[in-house]
Amino acid sequence: MILLVIAISCFSLLFAVYLARWVVQRDVGTDKMQEISNAIKEGAEAFLSRQNRTIVSFAAALAVLIFVLYAFVRTPSPADPVPPVQMAFWTTLAFVLGALCSVIAGYIGMWVSIRANIRTASAVRSSLNEGLRIALRGGAVSGLFVVAMSLLGVGGLYALLNSLGHDPQKIPFTIVGYGFGASFVALFAQLGGGIYTKAADVGADLVGKVEAGIPEDDPRNPAVIADLVGDNVGDCAGRGADLFESTAAENIGAMILGVGLYPFFGLQGILFPLVARAFGLIASIVGIMIVKCDENEDPMAALNRGYYVTSALAIVGFFFAARSMLAVDPAAHPGAESAWFYFFLCGVIGIAMAQAFVYITQYYTEYKYRPVKSIAEASQTGPATNIIAGMAVGLECTALPVLVISVAIMASYYLGKLSGVPHAGLFGTAVATMGMLGTAAYILAMDTFGPITDNAGGIIEMSGQPEEVRRKTDRLDAVGNTTKALTKGYAIGSAALAAFLLFSAYLDEVAHYGSKLESVNIAKPEVFVGGLLGAMLVFLFSALAIRAVGKAAYYVINEVRRQFKENPGILQGTVKPDYARCVDIVTVGALKEMVLPGMIAVFMPVTVGVIFRFFFGMGAEVVAAFLMVGTIAGILMALFLNNSGGAWDNAKKFIEMGQYGGKGSETHKAAVVGDTVGDPFKDTAGPSLHVLIKLLSTITLVLAPLFL
Amino acid sequence: MILLVIAISCFSLLFAVYLARWVVQRDVGTDKMQEISNAIKEGAEAFLSRQNRTIVSFAAALAVLIFVLYAFVRTPSPADPVPPVQMAFWTTLAFVLGALCSVIAGYIGMWVSIRANIRTASAVRSSLNEGLRIALRGGAVSGLFVVAMSLLGVGGLYALLNSLGHDPQKIPFTIVGYGFGASFVALFAQLGGGIYTKAADVGADLVGKVEAGIPEDDPRNPAVIADLVGDNVGDCAGRGADLFESTAAENIGAMILGVGLYPFFGLQGILFPLVARAFGLIASIVGIMIVKCDENEDPMAALNRGYYVTSALAIVGFFFAARSMLAVDPAAHPGAESAWFYFFLCGVIGIAMAQAFVYITQYYTEYKYRPVKSIAEASQTGPATNIIAGMAVGLECTALPVLVISVAIMASYYLGKLSGVPHAGLFGTAVATMGMLGTAAYILAMDTFGPITDNAGGIIEMSGQPEEVRRKTDRLDAVGNTTKALTKGYAIGSAALAAFLLFSAYLDEVAHYGSKLESVNIAKPEVFVGGLLGAMLVFLFSALAIRAVGKAAYYVINEVRRQFKENPGILQGTVKPDYARCVDIVTVGALKEMVLPGMIAVFMPVTVGVIFRFFFGMGAEVVAAFLMVGTIAGILMALFLNNSGGAWDNAKKFIEMGQYGGKGSETHKAAVVGDTVGDPFKDTAGPSLHVLIKLLSTITLVLAPLFL
Repeated sequence: MILLVIAISCFSLLFAVYLARWVVQRDVGTDKMQEISNAIKEGAEAFLSRQNRTIVSFAAALAVLIFVLYAFVRTPSPADPVPPVQMAFWTTLAFVLGALCSVIAGYIGMWVSIRANIRTASAVRSSLNEGLRIALRGGAVSGLFVVAMSLLGVGGLYALLNSLGHDPQKIPFTIVGYGFGASFVALFAQLGGGIYTKAADVGADLVGKVEAGIPEDDPRNPAVIADLVGDNVGDCAGRGADLFESTAAENIGAMILGVGLYPFFGLQGILFPLVARAFGLIASIVGIMIVKCDENEDPMAALNRGYYVTSALAIVGFFFAARSMLAVDPAAHPGAESAWFYFFLCGVIGIAMAQAFVYITQYYTEYKYRPVKSIAEASQTGPATNIIAGMAVGLECTALPVLVISVAIMASYYLGKLSGVPHAGLFGTAVATMGMLGTAAYILAMDTFGPITDNAGGIIEMSGQPEEVRRKTDRLDAVGNTTKALTKGYAIGSAALAAFLLFSAYLDEVAHYGSKLESVNIAKPEVFVGGLLGAMLVFLFSALAIRAVGKAAYYVINEVRRQFKENPGILQGTVKPDYARCVDIVTVGALKEMVLPGMIAVFMPVTVGVIFRFFFGMGAEVVAAFLMVGTIAGILMALFLNNSGGAWDNAKKFIEMGQYGGKGSETHKAAVVGDTVGDPFKDTAGPSLHVLIKLLSTITLVLAPLFL
Repeated sequence: MILLVIAISCFSLLFAVYLARWVVQRDVGTDKMQEISNAIKEGAEAFLSRQNRTIVSFAAALAVLIFVLYAFVRTPSPADPVPPVQMAFWTTLAFVLGALCSVIAGYIGMWVSIRANIRTASAVRSSLNEGLRIALRGGAVSGLFVVAMSLLGVGGLYALLNSLGHDPQKIPFTIVGYGFGASFVALFAQLGGGIYTKAADVGADLVGKVEAGIPEDDPRNPAVIADLVGDNVGDCAGRGADLFESTAAENIGAMILGVGLYPFFGLQGILFPLVARAFGLIASIVGIMIVKCDENEDPMAALNRGYYVTSALAIVGFFFAARSMLAVDPAAHPGAESAWFYFFLCGVIGIAMAQAFVYITQYYTEYKYRPVKSIAEASQTGPATNIIAGMAVGLECTALPVLVISVAIMASYYLGKLSGVPHAGLFGTAVATMGMLGTAAYILAMDTFGPITDNAGGIIEMSGQPEEVRRKTDRLDAVGNTTKALTKGYAIGSAALAAFLLFSAYLDEVAHYGSKLESVNIAKPEVFVGGLLGAMLVFLFSALAIRAVGKAAYYVINEVRRQFKENPGILQGTVKPDYARCVDIVTVGALKEMVLPGMIAVFMPVTVGVIFRFFFGMGAEVVAAFLMVGTIAGILMALFLNNSGGAWDNAKKFIEMGQYGGKGSETHKAAVVGDTVGDPFKDTAGPSLHVLIKLLSTITLVLAPLFL
């Protein structure tokens, strides 16, 4: 079975390579276009390689720390899967491997996306369909690499340990470090990328549009290339790392829960998460390949068709996986013979939840509906009412997703309970998470579609293509904005489910170590304080992420002002601005500013756990509350930040389409304020919170033995 | 002992009447001043009487519902303190009494404050000290009435039931309705008042300052009286109801915890909270009476002196109360002979926590310190960066208060545990809450000082007094702004502690009913979902409160526009605008818009409890998580909203003092945007959340028997 998983992972990687080759072989347009595209490419690669160097050095330090803690500090427990030094070795190895795979997947995804942008731009000149396909397949490379690498990593580690003779029931506990490695990279990738993209955006806008009065994406603006680079490093590399982490952590968490049901499903219960994910990869590949659209069709409709096909195939795959792997021997366990069907239904719930999140996100962020319209209307009385209306929409939009999550958790839990397999309720919620993440590769392809088309639009704009071509890239770009917003909804929904699964796994792990943690009793003062501190971390982290954007943008503003002042020819259009220096400055600024929020996110849970362990003797329970209440606060805050940002963005677009005075009116100016405020919300703090939620889970999973 | 409590309450009420008479006997200034003051008085009284009518009718409906639920729907339990119909009668009576006392205390407080404003204005013309004393003593009427009425209500109910022969150990469970009645009134008073004050403020500013270009508080603005009325109904009546609820709920909650320690302290443990509160009243009276200042002194220093004296006396009172009432018989309980001293220390922790909150609030909202300065600096690049900086400050400012709350809870809990009395940990946290609320009357006097001096400033401004007098009222007004901000910090801190105490009481109550609720295990999916929904309510409620301000402001804007258009003489200053109509419109608008958020806050916890009770058989535990996680989210959100609003306000004031271009500059315009955004945050949604937190507790306390 594990060989099948590895085979499908390898096939998906090969298929991604094929797609990458296909993309690279497309036409690359005019010299002018290539010049711009090359500048973006250089900037993105420079940022990513510097960022990776930073992350790798942090990760290496942490790896040493983990090894030391496990090998020498911690008191060995008789429940350890392997002896202390071995345990330290495997945990550290898994951590390093998880970090490495995440870095590689992110790098390759971006390698293609910064090549697909110009090819999309070039293709759109002749055919919208061709442009759509290049952008989506370019995005698919990222999607497939992320999901397949995470699967291959977990599956490969499992196979390796298995072949070395480890007890399969203990392997999941030995490789939890993989998920932590992935989270660790994801946190910094998302933070660094998110700070970069918005610092460049806000900086370019404030000096360019507001002070110098030149339009957006104008080649005279020294920060314009940095802005285009930002789309790649934030949306593409950042979100890739985010979903890499989701799938990796979910795989391991679900395997740990599978261990608990070993008497019923045997090995197959442990491997089921991997097989289900592998089938999801195949479904995504089919979905990606069938997407095409007519010249006059809404490209979003074409992408939606692909998504429906992927979802349908994922359901079918899930059906067969559940039926073949979760069949219980009716003789040994009477009453549980149709358990597999209950779990199949749990998977369907997960897939349905993904759909529901997509719809809710659209309702709150598209200008067809009341919320965005109310913000546009409020902009008539100025920026203050625009902000107040946006805040109200953002706070309100948390209600429906929370209801959906609540229903999904309760329904899958009770289906699991009713399956006839005792104590399978939590496994039911795990299966729902698998269902939700089944379509991850397709969703990620749609997400990376966003920066590719955004860049294509920028290249077309800056190289002065005819109006008609611009209109086509604008259509693709608008679709890209929608898919980016949807992915964020999907990412937070899956983070919520994955987190729930992961803290179930944490409790299983604690139980495995024979601790007495029977409940996480929030009525105890210590535990309540743990929860309070967890929620506080979410607020503090958001503050630091938002402030980091402001600080990094400040560097950009100063540099652009300097260039304008020292070289007046730039604004007259006679001298080319120094794009590279701006790119450099944002790079350095973003990497510098990501350190503080990143470090607080990593060290606060550890500190809380260790303090409560040593002073009050109840680290595990306090950390569990820290994690759970922190997750609740994180889900709500991320929804608030993502959706208010998206709504402000589209309220501005709605006005630009001619409503309430259109572009250039006072109402539009007010809407621009909201859009700018929303930038760090939706592209820095919000997405970083997705990662934070999962990081809290994986960090506690890995360090659980320290708190006992 | 109970007689002493009742005697001190009555004495405090008489003293308040004396202060009110003293205030009313002061000089009332010129005819012009009286004309303005009368308009404010009429508007405020009209609003309050209509609001009270609305609240009373809601409360009456709810009272009937409570009676029916208790008497006929609920299955009687053998643990009921009295038979079902009697229990229904007492619970309903307590609810009605709580609601009524809150309404009366709020009404009388405002009755004085709308009379103290003009007398303060008149006095300032000759002496700053005299103005300060009138404003503070006017505020003290409100403070003393609120605290004494709540004490008298609880003490009186206890005495009544005791004289009817009820078992003293069961009385606290019979009168929990009193706290719920107080919360219910507080919710609507704070919501209605908060919406009123900010709708009038935002509406007046947007049409007056922005559209018509006339200064703030200009008599030509038809909404200017409504704005001045708003200060009274929001800050004075609203916050009064808020702290009435805190003290009432805390009294009952602490009595319930006292019941649990009956074997050690006997009756005295149950009555201790009332006695401690009574001593606090005396300390506050002394503190209020000693306040006076020199003409050239900072009035804040004078108020602080009074506060220090009050705190010191409260500590002394606490010492004697603890020593005389919490003395354990050393023969019967060896090892617990110095328990009283541990509890005294818990009280000191509460008083210290109040101080800490005051300092932290000052740090985040005064322009002497980094946070406000950073917002002012960010305003240079426009409204967007002003908002981003303010959001970052608001999110960040949650960290320190949470640490303080955590330390206070843990320290008082462990002091209680170490006292030698078994299971007294939670009683320790209750005693800390008593300590914190000991100075409530003085704090409330300082709070009501705010709207009185604000109004005095408006009266001086509108009646065209000389510049020199204005400068004096401006000084008092600035102090009033500070005290308003501090009270909010104090209110949220005490709400957090009181909530923790109340859910301990809830668990005691559930245990009293013999249920098996041994833990609130958030690791169970149902309980986790309960917590998630509780946190969601906080976000949704904030959204609705903020939106309500926008809607009500919209009515004002339309009315002011109509008056300007239909009667051009208004803007020329030849015709007096129709102030009364504006007051009317805000009144109707605010009362209409408060219904939806209020209803959701009341019915959501009940719905969640009933659904989980009937479908999953675990209502009590789910509601407990709803309450606790909702409280955590509420504390953080309220801190965020209050302090970001305060910081924006003072960033604007800092710029108006001449920084970064001063008044009228682009930087100032950007700062005005932040100030306007902060208005509904700090004066509507934030303070309403204090009440929501406690309402959740009291509602679950009263309806707990329904969820079992």
